[in-house]
Amino acid sequence: MPRVGPSRPTITDVAKAAGVSKGAVSFALNGRPGVAEETRARILAVAASLGWTPSHRARALSASRAFSVGMVIARPPELLGADPFYPSFIAGVERTLSDRGQSLVLQVVPDLSAEEASYRRLATAERVDGVFVLDLRLGDPRIALLAELGLPAVTIGRPDVPSNHPALLVDDRPGVTAAVTHLAGLGHRRIAHVSGPLHFLHGAVRRQAWEQALAAAGLTPGPCVESDFSAAGGAQATRALLDTDDPPTAIVYGNDLMAIAGLSVAVQLGIKVPDELSITGFDDTELAGYVTPTLTTVRTDPFGWGRAAADALLDLIDGRPGADLPTPPAPLVVRGSTAPPPTPRP
Amino acid sequence: MPRVGPSRPTITDVAKAAGVSKGAVSFALNGRPGVAEETRARILAVAASLGWTPSHRARALSASRAFSVGMVIARPPELLGADPFYPSFIAGVERTLSDRGQSLVLQVVPDLSAEEASYRRLATAERVDGVFVLDLRLGDPRIALLAELGLPAVTIGRPDVPSNHPALLVDDRPGVTAAVTHLAGLGHRRIAHVSGPLHFLHGAVRRQAWEQALAAAGLTPGPCVESDFSAAGGAQATRALLDTDDPPTAIVYGNDLMAIAGLSVAVQLGIKVPDELSITGFDDTELAGYVTPTLTTVRTDPFGWGRAAADALLDLIDGRPGADLPTPPAPLVVRGSTAPPPTPRP
Repeated sequence: MPRVGPSRPTITDVAKAAGVSKGAVSFALNGRPGVAEETRARILAVAASLGWTPSHRARALSASRAFSVGMVIARPPELLGADPFYPSFIAGVERTLSDRGQSLVLQVVPDLSAEEASYRRLATAERVDGVFVLDLRLGDPRIALLAELGLPAVTIGRPDVPSNHPALLVDDRPGVTAAVTHLAGLGHRRIAHVSGPLHFLHGAVRRQAWEQALAAAGLTPGPCVESDFSAAGGAQATRALLDTDDPPTAIVYGNDLMAIAGLSVAVQLGIKVPDELSITGFDDTELAGYVTPTLTTVRTDPFGWGRAAADALLDLIDGRPGADLPTPPAPLVVRGSTAPPPTPRP
Repeated sequence: MPRVGPSRPTITDVAKAAGVSKGAVSFALNGRPGVAEETRARILAVAASLGWTPSHRARALSASRAFSVGMVIARPPELLGADPFYPSFIAGVERTLSDRGQSLVLQVVPDLSAEEASYRRLATAERVDGVFVLDLRLGDPRIALLAELGLPAVTIGRPDVPSNHPALLVDDRPGVTAAVTHLAGLGHRRIAHVSGPLHFLHGAVRRQAWEQALAAAGLTPGPCVESDFSAAGGAQATRALLDTDDPPTAIVYGNDLMAIAGLSVAVQLGIKVPDELSITGFDDTELAGYVTPTLTTVRTDPFGWGRAAADALLDLIDGRPGADLPTPPAPLVVRGSTAPPPTPRP
């Protein structure tokens, strides 16, 4: 039985009513550049008055665009709930995406092999127009994989392998350097480090910055314990560092979560922070200002990074690849968990 | 110029090679029930050997399915980074989705009007097959909106308005009741509450449970301060409660983040926890076991809830609506932040 009633208005109908070309209508309705802002507004108003509704899937097919970007996170789900980095980054991404009519497709995978399969599926099923690459690893195989898949990508940090993907130049070095310099300036000579996983570039880079800052201050590296960014891991690493004959007087942690857990371990062991042990974090999460003592830490900006990375990715997808994006150095926020070391007993 | 080379295999090709009906192939390739597991495995193997690749968009158009589910979060982005509920819930959702070949489309919106627009866009642009409804509000307008839009939905908690959407029956009452009963059993007579926003059903329900448990213990309600689930809000509420002539001897907080901040405020004011003030949280976040003293709190399961809600939503989308899903009551985890109240001075 034939359908009766007004048919859905076409782009031709909208173009005729608005007195513009079909190309201008298409550009305006798809939110692409190439049409003046006031023309765009008029076209949208005319289209709306004709009852035109964009069908996302039809739009995606005609433009060969998914109007979505993707993020694959290969971390244990438990950590995703505890570490505020990802939620803040995602919130920043969403801020940009919602302004530009795009969606975020999120996939959390249990391990690295599932991760590769996930990127392949996103690319071959054309579910996303591009992806963010986070948690860069040493010699990260995803850089070549994404080039092979032809999937536009923006990396968070610059990979240590050749990469043609634009990078958001997040640099953790200045923050760690500031923490070590602050502690050395207070008189600490034995400054330990609790790192994140060292196969992550950000883990390795923070560790290296700690070592180089110590050298610059004329100090030999104290002990370093590799951990996993979780509170449980930070507590365990702290016990390993403090339960020795010659414990450090200061510990530089790779993130706030491990530092706050370390603070708790010190209290349990009867070690006073900051009088007997100084502690620094990394991230400046909301709780850093609400633990006792308050946490000296490095203030990063995952929300701002998410926003900037999303802008860069959408520009790249639109055929306007940009250069690598610098980010301002993360400052050290000095609070109550750092002080001069105890005077050595005579 | 005509394309040369083997054309893409069709469903007919796969059916012929596998010796099954086209319908069986379609069911197998789309991951729908109705074909035996071993038949499905054989069809997939044959399809793969023929070089068959599903194109997500073509598949979505033919089946009129987006193969994605959506979540719209109307919270300030800063809180999204601090409160581990959403990331844990999302991780649970992803666990189910990745098993079933689906994606999560996530939208974070700044306020309630943007929220409604976001649901409308998801529905009319057919970007998702269904949505999760979280942070239910008193008289939540989204229940009717989603029915109007014809968008399948699963609510987290049962709304206080008539709803035909299946609900995951998360009940915060038993946990709060257990906390109040524990404190009353220790001898506390003046038990305050720092709630989340009371326009959220979960905020209002926790407040009500606190009041009813006090009444059941023969106690009059202590003061209640409405806050916002953030550390800053929790700190401010705690100061308001403690800076009075007759401060409470125990405070029941609506989440861990506010409780940990409250702990810090007490320390700053020289009030000993738990000797002079008992504190309970809600969530059992990872840090709850790593603050000093460790936090007595209610252990919820947002990861398990996400998983169960995703299963229920996918079943609903597949045309198999289920009944409301019960969840086990959240237990109280007693740690170091609760003790008998100080003996009143004679």
